Amino acid sequence: MINVTIWNEDSIETSAESVLAVYPEGLNGAIRDFLKVNDDMNVRTANLEEDECGLPDEILNSTDVLIWWGHGKHQRVPDELVKKIHNRVLCGMGMIFLHSAHFSKPFISLMGTTCSLKWREGDRERIWTILPYHPIAKGIPEHFELESEEMYGERFDIPAPDEQIFLGWFAGGEVFRSGNVWNRGLGKVFYFQPGHETNGSFHNEYVQRIITNGVRYVAPVEIVEKIECPHFESLEK
Amino acid sequence: MINVTIWNEDSIETSAESVLAVYPEGLNGAIRDFLKVNDDMNVRTANLEEDECGLPDEILNSTDVLIWWGHGKHQRVPDELVKKIHNRVLCGMGMIFLHSAHFSKPFISLMGTTCSLKWREGDRERIWTILPYHPIAKGIPEHFELESEEMYGERFDIPAPDEQIFLGWFAGGEVFRSGNVWNRGLGKVFYFQPGHETNGSFHNEYVQRIITNGVRYVAPVEIVEKIECPHFESLEK
Amino acid sequence: MINVTIWNEDSIETSAESVLAVYPEGLNGAIRDFLKVNDDMNVRTANLEEDECGLPDEILNSTDVLIWWGHGKHQRVPDELVKKIHNRVLCGMGMIFLHSAHFSKPFISLMGTTCSLKWREGDRERIWTILPYHPIAKGIPEHFELESEEMYGERFDIPAPDEQIFLGWFAGGEVFRSGNVWNRGLGKVFYFQPGHETNGSFHNEYVQRIITNGVRYVAPVEIVEKIECPHFESLEK
Amino acid sequence: MINVTIWNEDSIETSAESVLAVYPEGLNGAIRDFLKVNDDMNVRTANLEEDECGLPDEILNSTDVLIWWGHGKHQRVPDELVKKIHNRVLCGMGMIFLHSAHFSKPFISLMGTTCSLKWREGDRERIWTILPYHPIAKGIPEHFELESEEMYGERFDIPAPDEQIFLGWFAGGEVFRSGNVWNRGLGKVFYFQPGHETNGSFHNEYVQRIITNGVRYVAPVEIVEKIECPHFESLEK
Repeated sequence: MINVTIWNEDSIETSAESVLAVYPEGLNGAIRDFLKVNDDMNVRTANLEEDECGLPDEILNSTDVLIWWGHGKHQRVPDELVKKIHNRVLCGMGMIFLHSAHFSKPFISLMGTTCSLKWREGDRERIWTILPYHPIAKGIPEHFELESEEMYGERFDIPAPDEQIFLGWFAGGEVFRSGNVWNRGLGKVFYFQPGHETNGSFHNEYVQRIITNGVRYVAPVEIVEKIECPHFESLEK
Repeated sequence: MINVTIWNEDSIETSAESVLAVYPEGLNGAIRDFLKVNDDMNVRTANLEEDECGLPDEILNSTDVLIWWGHGKHQRVPDELVKKIHNRVLCGMGMIFLHSAHFSKPFISLMGTTCSLKWREGDRERIWTILPYHPIAKGIPEHFELESEEMYGERFDIPAPDEQIFLGWFAGGEVFRSGNVWNRGLGKVFYFQPGHETNGSFHNEYVQRIITNGVRYVAPVEIVEKIECPHFESLEK
Repeated sequence: MINVTIWNEDSIETSAESVLAVYPEGLNGAIRDFLKVNDDMNVRTANLEEDECGLPDEILNSTDVLIWWGHGKHQRVPDELVKKIHNRVLCGMGMIFLHSAHFSKPFISLMGTTCSLKWREGDRERIWTILPYHPIAKGIPEHFELESEEMYGERFDIPAPDEQIFLGWFAGGEVFRSGNVWNRGLGKVFYFQPGHETNGSFHNEYVQRIITNGVRYVAPVEIVEKIECPHFESLEK
Repeated sequence: MINVTIWNEDSIETSAESVLAVYPEGLNGAIRDFLKVNDDMNVRTANLEEDECGLPDEILNSTDVLIWWGHGKHQRVPDELVKKIHNRVLCGMGMIFLHSAHFSKPFISLMGTTCSLKWREGDRERIWTILPYHPIAKGIPEHFELESEEMYGERFDIPAPDEQIFLGWFAGGEVFRSGNVWNRGLGKVFYFQPGHETNGSFHNEYVQRIITNGVRYVAPVEIVEKIECPHFESLEK
């Protein structure tokens, strides 16, 4: 059973009307609803307005896969919490960053780069699958479209991905490395670009499937307490 | 002309007797001496005891390649300086981390992992060149030995290197990814494992050549002011 | 259910006494015996002495994972069969190459390099796990020993692996990239270095587990008929 | 001095009118003309109609960088010559494959995959630079346009590139990994997608600069006679 925690900077109460018009249960609710039908996942949600930003130790430390969405409130996430999250990924927790979470503190600290890109609201995107055999691409066609998404364009300032699964094409003239996996410590990190708050991408069946596949792919084999740097006696006497 | 700054946590004054016995001019002096003979390099040194830890803005911002050695005083490097260094790498500055600098703050923040490893003093190492055509391996034989080095063994908790140039074999039974390059932002980072303070590796001709080659390899094409995340108008009307 | 075919250049009849002394059922039999206990695998064996080198179309085309061991008879495998095997990997079949299969025609053609290395019989090896979270490393300790193996040493002339899971240390002074995965077309290729015919590595519990894990890891999501290079009408109007 | 040989399947005599209308000196002549101005390059051309397909041993064995363009006559290049070319790359020769050379025998044998893709004539392309600090991208803006090119679209069936420098965007709706480098043996291989024979891409200043940079980047440090697979005596004891 995979314990999934979906984190958003907003609760339903703090979500804008324009967001609730698309996602009546908020972004967290939208993602929860398509994940919770899976028998192998325990799904819960958390948000910035809750105690300890929704991620007190007992929640974080019982999370196998953390899904992160943030846009305008990245700076309100305390550095101490970022360190705990980062450390738990290194110890094995899987993490999925959606859309504007490219600029979240945990993503930037895991990447070690600025994670900058080009952006523009309201474009049309076509996503191309370039690693069709990858578990995250299971059931995904060679291309599919999102009628309206925020354009994210290259150069995306990231380390070379360990696995580059999707490339995005935008009608306005840009390309983007839209779906990538990196190994960090004992954990896996998946970044997926769609998911602007006022577009309906989380209603798209392929986006849902990619995130569902992603949860299973980054789910840990095991999560260790700590990664040590031990003095080591020679094995050769 | 490449402006090289060699940074060490110690000055000659704060270096231990055991270090000065091997390197009378200190580690900074030893590295400076074999680099300064190169006509294409301006070499200077800096250390933790100097004003602003030896890296005030006018020094850091005129550095093309920063070489870093630290062992016991990593925590004394202020986070604010680490951010400046990290940012300058992302803007294009090259950086070489030697030996125990695997645990320095700038390296850890560039990697995004713990950078842990196994260690033991006083082993014999043989370094194998696995990318013989790489510019950093120019003039280096397929293997060479260091009679006494600190053993650093796997698992080395780093992101998969973009280029893996050297592997280390230790008589005590361990292996290590001893020479690796990563791209971060617009800058290049080279980690090289030899260089324990009481061994003589910086006197070794191949170690000297590798570091010299490394300076040229990570030297920037250009260093930008800032990596932007711009709103971008469509190129398609 | 994964259809596994284990291929060897020798049958029991053509195996040397020195091989049968270690593996009374031959190498094929030894591998078959530890794989066949798995409920998710259909295991069969094939060898060079059989009709069509043991891989007539009906066998090859019903194989999901092909395990390959060869040493002295690489040149007897016809180029036409090599093309069929290569093509089936590109269409999705998984393939595991053991030990001296580094010099087999299918491996060389999948890699595009010479696959040369250094070698010497009768050394002691210690294998280090450097990607502990990888499915192939499941249940494998951070290091384990093989009392006697053929030394295979760097430089191993292979393309940079997509995943580098194990590194080998040899008492005689060498290192080796001992366990690596490459994606080729829609298929996965796993190379694993132990398995000299007169040593007992296939009796080692960890070697057995690595090969068992490997079968599951390279097993195809699907195998397609052909990879096309189609003329493609524009999707934009 | 870099000895560059530019190979084309056609001579001026066998080039179609439609090609000569764009390139009066043929494709070979067009590439030769912008390369020969470089003081560090000796440039000559060769084509399929010449003796030994234009690449007798004395030519091939004195070539440092081989540029390859072919489209409709790939099958006329003899396998024996392909092996010689492939082998020379493994020994250190650099090689640049342009456009439809993705389906040439030397490229396919170096990659180990089908190198299939989607295609359509007469589209508009915009090329994005995603590794701006790479030597091949020196002097290239973050994006530039080719008013008419043959669309080459994903999925491009290649091994994951060691360096992915350019991505292509097509007005018709596709994306492509347009500029990639792979290490093979001791040699470097650069694939660059523009260059359809009836479009004018080789007149484009950026295309010219990319190919010029590419020649310097893949130029060998040294070319060895052969890559051996030696028996190796232990260095210990």
